[in-house]
Amino acid sequence: MIIVLKDGTTKEQIILFKAALEEKYSVTVNTWHGVGSTVLGLIGDTTAIDEDWINAQEIVDNVKRVQEPYKKANRKFHPDNTVIELPTGQKIGDGSLCIMAGPCSVESEEQINFIAERVKTAGASFLRGGAFKPRTSPYSFQGLKSEGLDLLKGARKATGLPIVTEIMSTAHIDMFEGVDIIQVGARNMQNFELLKQLGKTNKPILLKRGLSSTIEEWIMSAEYIMAGGNDNVILCERGIRTFETATRNTLDLSAVPIVKKLTHLPVIVDPSHATGKESLVQQMSLAAVASGADGLMIEVHNDPRHALSDGAQSLTPDQFDILAQKAFALKKAYDEING
Amino acid sequence: MIIVLKDGTTKEQIILFKAALEEKYSVTVNTWHGVGSTVLGLIGDTTAIDEDWINAQEIVDNVKRVQEPYKKANRKFHPDNTVIELPTGQKIGDGSLCIMAGPCSVESEEQINFIAERVKTAGASFLRGGAFKPRTSPYSFQGLKSEGLDLLKGARKATGLPIVTEIMSTAHIDMFEGVDIIQVGARNMQNFELLKQLGKTNKPILLKRGLSSTIEEWIMSAEYIMAGGNDNVILCERGIRTFETATRNTLDLSAVPIVKKLTHLPVIVDPSHATGKESLVQQMSLAAVASGADGLMIEVHNDPRHALSDGAQSLTPDQFDILAQKAFALKKAYDEING
Amino acid sequence: MIIVLKDGTTKEQIILFKAALEEKYSVTVNTWHGVGSTVLGLIGDTTAIDEDWINAQEIVDNVKRVQEPYKKANRKFHPDNTVIELPTGQKIGDGSLCIMAGPCSVESEEQINFIAERVKTAGASFLRGGAFKPRTSPYSFQGLKSEGLDLLKGARKATGLPIVTEIMSTAHIDMFEGVDIIQVGARNMQNFELLKQLGKTNKPILLKRGLSSTIEEWIMSAEYIMAGGNDNVILCERGIRTFETATRNTLDLSAVPIVKKLTHLPVIVDPSHATGKESLVQQMSLAAVASGADGLMIEVHNDPRHALSDGAQSLTPDQFDILAQKAFALKKAYDEING
Amino acid sequence: MIIVLKDGTTKEQIILFKAALEEKYSVTVNTWHGVGSTVLGLIGDTTAIDEDWINAQEIVDNVKRVQEPYKKANRKFHPDNTVIELPTGQKIGDGSLCIMAGPCSVESEEQINFIAERVKTAGASFLRGGAFKPRTSPYSFQGLKSEGLDLLKGARKATGLPIVTEIMSTAHIDMFEGVDIIQVGARNMQNFELLKQLGKTNKPILLKRGLSSTIEEWIMSAEYIMAGGNDNVILCERGIRTFETATRNTLDLSAVPIVKKLTHLPVIVDPSHATGKESLVQQMSLAAVASGADGLMIEVHNDPRHALSDGAQSLTPDQFDILAQKAFALKKAYDEING
Repeated sequence: MIIVLKDGTTKEQIILFKAALEEKYSVTVNTWHGVGSTVLGLIGDTTAIDEDWINAQEIVDNVKRVQEPYKKANRKFHPDNTVIELPTGQKIGDGSLCIMAGPCSVESEEQINFIAERVKTAGASFLRGGAFKPRTSPYSFQGLKSEGLDLLKGARKATGLPIVTEIMSTAHIDMFEGVDIIQVGARNMQNFELLKQLGKTNKPILLKRGLSSTIEEWIMSAEYIMAGGNDNVILCERGIRTFETATRNTLDLSAVPIVKKLTHLPVIVDPSHATGKESLVQQMSLAAVASGADGLMIEVHNDPRHALSDGAQSLTPDQFDILAQKAFALKKAYDEING
Repeated sequence: MIIVLKDGTTKEQIILFKAALEEKYSVTVNTWHGVGSTVLGLIGDTTAIDEDWINAQEIVDNVKRVQEPYKKANRKFHPDNTVIELPTGQKIGDGSLCIMAGPCSVESEEQINFIAERVKTAGASFLRGGAFKPRTSPYSFQGLKSEGLDLLKGARKATGLPIVTEIMSTAHIDMFEGVDIIQVGARNMQNFELLKQLGKTNKPILLKRGLSSTIEEWIMSAEYIMAGGNDNVILCERGIRTFETATRNTLDLSAVPIVKKLTHLPVIVDPSHATGKESLVQQMSLAAVASGADGLMIEVHNDPRHALSDGAQSLTPDQFDILAQKAFALKKAYDEING
Repeated sequence: MIIVLKDGTTKEQIILFKAALEEKYSVTVNTWHGVGSTVLGLIGDTTAIDEDWINAQEIVDNVKRVQEPYKKANRKFHPDNTVIELPTGQKIGDGSLCIMAGPCSVESEEQINFIAERVKTAGASFLRGGAFKPRTSPYSFQGLKSEGLDLLKGARKATGLPIVTEIMSTAHIDMFEGVDIIQVGARNMQNFELLKQLGKTNKPILLKRGLSSTIEEWIMSAEYIMAGGNDNVILCERGIRTFETATRNTLDLSAVPIVKKLTHLPVIVDPSHATGKESLVQQMSLAAVASGADGLMIEVHNDPRHALSDGAQSLTPDQFDILAQKAFALKKAYDEING
Repeated sequence: MIIVLKDGTTKEQIILFKAALEEKYSVTVNTWHGVGSTVLGLIGDTTAIDEDWINAQEIVDNVKRVQEPYKKANRKFHPDNTVIELPTGQKIGDGSLCIMAGPCSVESEEQINFIAERVKTAGASFLRGGAFKPRTSPYSFQGLKSEGLDLLKGARKATGLPIVTEIMSTAHIDMFEGVDIIQVGARNMQNFELLKQLGKTNKPILLKRGLSSTIEEWIMSAEYIMAGGNDNVILCERGIRTFETATRNTLDLSAVPIVKKLTHLPVIVDPSHATGKESLVQQMSLAAVASGADGLMIEVHNDPRHALSDGAQSLTPDQFDILAQKAFALKKAYDEING
């Protein structure tokens, strides 16, 4: 961490500030005096240093972090890729393309079982489906809740596909005991109390990027979970909010290689929520594969026109068959090319 | 709600769709046939209609909402201003300028009592202070938690100032029983489970705008609380995330007159979090007053350079004295001018 | 175009407004009366209708465009792909992958000739290079100007590669007579006087998307050129400005399939300017190919560390060899998969 | 300027890089060696240093500018406020509130003369009006062009109000000889060729902030004009592009105190273009005054419903009378309060 002090800072002020830094944090402080300005360099573990606190000091002009503010998620300290492996054998981050597919909302036993069979046949290795639904309006369908979880478990039993579903409150953690991968949605990416509680479980957590989260903030939310002791975090890029209105969100595929460089965690892409349009999902799935993603999360509905949520972005099972076939084929070519 | 159907939609499809709409929602559907396109107009309460569902229909080209998607917060159905009145007499939204002030974090009994006395003397009518702190990093100070709440109550006893403090989890609602106004922070604006639980209380709720929330989404979050039965919502503009980096966020003062037109709820402004810079707080407080805000929320710290959080944007008590004096003076002039 | 009138609009006002619309524009106006609201539907060519003017009418609540506001660029009226073909035979938009490569700035004869040879060998079919450079600071290198154009022409002579270079002023149009493709940069995307002048030429124009332009605005700028009589427009996605700072801009690859659906124009992608980071260029080039782009524009410099501009995002010729090889290989696989 | 070098940089590399820096720019380079990292500090005039070039060096990890990249606009080197004074005596930046008002587009002699009289009577000291209009669509009204300039001059003759109007091309500079203040619109803020040419005139230039320009980029565009020798620059905040759609743009009033701190130039605010809604203009004008702005630019039209452009945001002369009266009254109170 580099701290630039203001012009006119006195020697006494510098000595006192250095002492405060060394006492408050376990760091060594080096000083460099230029003409009219002084720069401090902090050596050691600066992860815990609060930039706000530094910035608030009267003598500080500005601060620049050199080290990343995260440790457990940092590839520097954990060079190998994290591979998430489920008891039933499915893997995420092992170099294969993992597809999670299913409806936005679980609606009925018939619906979820039918879709589960179809996405399994097409090559998906996980069943996704919402039981608790975050909706902008209190008057919209809020999900089947615990009944939805039971239906997901039923579909798992029928197909063998592990299930991924979203949690919305710390109060529901016990209810999610039987879930294979717990999803944290974009709107809860900085629900820190929830992240802390999930850090105490040993479940794989699928952490979606917040609508307006920087990549660093997203990794910091992964760090919250990992700091609690749970290293099983999967990151999911799902589009960010920008001025563009042609798509629901703007899919930021550059985030995939960046996150894979900065962290050792698997990264998947959700083109359904990112684009909000069924007609773009296949194309952006292929682009996601070529961006180096470890997997895809795709909304599939037996009857999108009658879906209780997000129908506009859901594929039919037939459309998903084609998408999966193309995505696996492109992944194969991609791997050969990148040898 | 206006629904534009795709070219080539058949009469049979239109009849079936109209029937589905009328059955699913309590609306009347009018049809207008143009050359090559058909438009449906829905009359009745369209609040509960799910645009996603409409958009997902194969025959639908696009949808336009004419009515706002909120009812309880809507000024159309509640023309008079909502005035929040505390049992101890303080009012928000009655035409006066309400100032809430205090430290970002409660740090000690001495600190909070000293600041409480000072801001009261300066004219603040509420004491703000964080006991549970949402921090980007798990390694930053997370607040004094329940001890912090106790210290706030102590300061209230000493000064008579009601207290405003942030809640971060549904698990803490009981703990907040003794708090006068419960704050929902920007990161939890769409923590819908929390909003629902707060809707079951009768506490005034201060709802901060999310970092990337549209004004409509913000009002919909107020609607969540109100739909649960709690009409005591105060909205707080605190800056949105944009590309500009000169300020922490971009303060959107246009939101003040817009929200006051669309809803009947009081709106206050937090220039401390919006700008992130002590040097801008006074100026933007005055601008907020002139934008028609019902109040201000200001961070004040006895010793900003040693604050455990957000020191860079905190004012000293002396700076706050000047700000409060100027803000009340400007409010007086503003009221005279606007007669 | 659908116009929703305000509650309380009188019959007389509606009659007068309809007459005004029909007189002012060549449209037929249909009226639909709902309970408490009236909707007008405009049939005919609404391209020329000014939404601002409609919105300004006292009786108008809001307006919704159903038709796109562009004609010449619209795929509806021109279903076949536009293929740009140069006199020397190179094609853009014919289904092949077109790569334009070269330095950000032309710096010397030796430099440009060396790079031109290398990118040609690697498979590029166009040489890019800046002679006039838009720089944020007046104190930064502004390009070799007309000398730079001469050097580009020399490199073309030596290699046979047609040249692409940016124009910054209408005053330079004559000077660009010998250029094969004239580039309009992001900052000039809405320099409408320049677009009009370029519409009078018969040169292919490479139109970069503005930093904060919506896809519709970008297409409207293409429409400016085409309205002048020049149909040879190539669109280039180069990233948009968002809150994310990990990349220079946010590459919006969803724009590729969207633009290809809405228009008949070729679309290429510039991952160099989008990401601003050499380490991301190859990965995002592959993602661009898989998004369906017609081509790539890549910055290549013999010695990026000594480049006079944009060195941080330039590839070495060796890096470019690998990129081109992988991009063509992926394009081949992509075409087979999409058969 | 602080340059952080990568881990593992050798002594030889550092020596060579320092020599290159000192030769290329007139700076002194100081070195500070930490554990595992080296930091260079550059002393001297770093304005001309190209961050891109620094970042492109292989041994550079990152760069931090300590000094601002502008000189002529910088308040550090020019502590006193710049006051723009016209030959006819009107001043901008002298502490008074300057109001520029008039129609978006000049439409006819009768229109412009009528509006000019009305805004003069209400207290405006400048007449604004567009003769060349930047329109998103080539099919929208493009302004009366040179005829519009003549009509503006006629209105000036009739009222004595100096005129402010927008230039769109370097080709028109001679035509603008008779204009009092030349406006550069948001879309041309980075039309660097235009800025350079305007730098060679001695006219006051009103420089609007670009839709997605940072404050620093905006000041750099002012620096372009000033670097050419023309110090008469007035900055105009007119809203930035964000995700919010309730307003046409998001008015960034924090920019006013920031720009006034960083530069010595006058800053005015255009709430008409920022909000795009007549109903918000008065309120945001008052907020702008309280943010410390030197002036306002307001769209006024005799008959907004029939305006050829931007009618939705134009005030009637009667509405403007009230706005001006309130704005001057608030300015008076503001000045007394800030004594």
